Amino acid sequence: MKVLVVGATGAVGKAVVSELAQRHEVIQASRSSVTYPVDITQAASIGALFKRTGKIDAIVATVGSVHFGLLSEMTGEQFRIGINNKLMGQVELVLQGQSHLNAGGSITLTSGIISDEPIRMGANASAVNRAIEGFVCGAAIELLRGVRINAVNASVLVESLRTYAPFFIGFDAVPAARVAMAYARSVDGAATGQIYRVR
Amino acid sequence: MKVLVVGATGAVGKAVVSELAQRHEVIQASRSSVTYPVDITQAASIGALFKRTGKIDAIVATVGSVHFGLLSEMTGEQFRIGINNKLMGQVELVLQGQSHLNAGGSITLTSGIISDEPIRMGANASAVNRAIEGFVCGAAIELLRGVRINAVNASVLVESLRTYAPFFIGFDAVPAARVAMAYARSVDGAATGQIYRVR
Repeated sequence: MKVLVVGATGAVGKAVVSELAQRHEVIQASRSSVTYPVDITQAASIGALFKRTGKIDAIVATVGSVHFGLLSEMTGEQFRIGINNKLMGQVELVLQGQSHLNAGGSITLTSGIISDEPIRMGANASAVNRAIEGFVCGAAIELLRGVRINAVNASVLVESLRTYAPFFIGFDAVPAARVAMAYARSVDGAATGQIYRVR
Repeated sequence: MKVLVVGATGAVGKAVVSELAQRHEVIQASRSSVTYPVDITQAASIGALFKRTGKIDAIVATVGSVHFGLLSEMTGEQFRIGINNKLMGQVELVLQGQSHLNAGGSITLTSGIISDEPIRMGANASAVNRAIEGFVCGAAIELLRGVRINAVNASVLVESLRTYAPFFIGFDAVPAARVAMAYARSVDGAATGQIYRVR
């Protein structure tokens, strides 16, 4: 299969590329890529990416940032950071990507544990992650030509603890390599509308 | 208690006003109101509303529209209709409203059954409704001074079947008066971070 990984240079993305490259041709897209550059906040940039990839069999999005900050100080503008980046970035990849997928292809998005395990400063992340899961649930019943869609919802990464540990006290961190297996289950499997939780 | 109902002229809003007015002073805000007009897509309009209400004990949002349309034809711009209206409208009400609530006050938002029971043309609604629930889950642990937040997730209204019946075949419709009771449970109760499902 020809698999497009958007966000290939991130901690999860790298692990997903390693996992999938064992069986598939992997196209690695990221903001800094020379061959497949993409800015997920720009619909036109996503359009240009699909023009470059041609028809593909799977899209994996391991990409998107959210706003972390105290609710009591949060502004609508700050809340829109996660909306415009992680949510609309992934949604655009689906809306535009659906017609670039071969029949029976798949899309795998990324939510995250804050969707159902809220943390301080994480209200934007909780909203954005659940929105992605709701979108997967809604899109799964409408995608045509046997195209499937799932999301992976992982705990904090072992690899990210150096930065995030103070926010995730008491959380069981998971290695990126184990998270990557959930993406493989989505890409190589047959399920749709699933949220793969890695805890 | 002094309760602000935003969206007081809608099918749910009217029923909520009837239910709450039995025990509370209810301020009815809506797009068309002369005394409490508000356009929830404009942060400044929400700010002006809270200036007019002064301190309140509860905010109830029964407001917000989403985009209904086939996923295969949906554009990012259409998807943003629900984001800018139902999601960001309710989020802005919380972000700005939190400092206008008396200690121990409450906020009650509105999601909807498409969050977990997807329908054709409903991908935007599924995403937006779940985002609202994720936001409630995240905000509940951060609100200060004992302020609470919950959401009501109701099935299609009996009162809306004339318009929406073809989209909700096989769904058990609920009367607005029964949905209003869930809002009362949130306003008059003591719980926080809850999603009240009315089925």
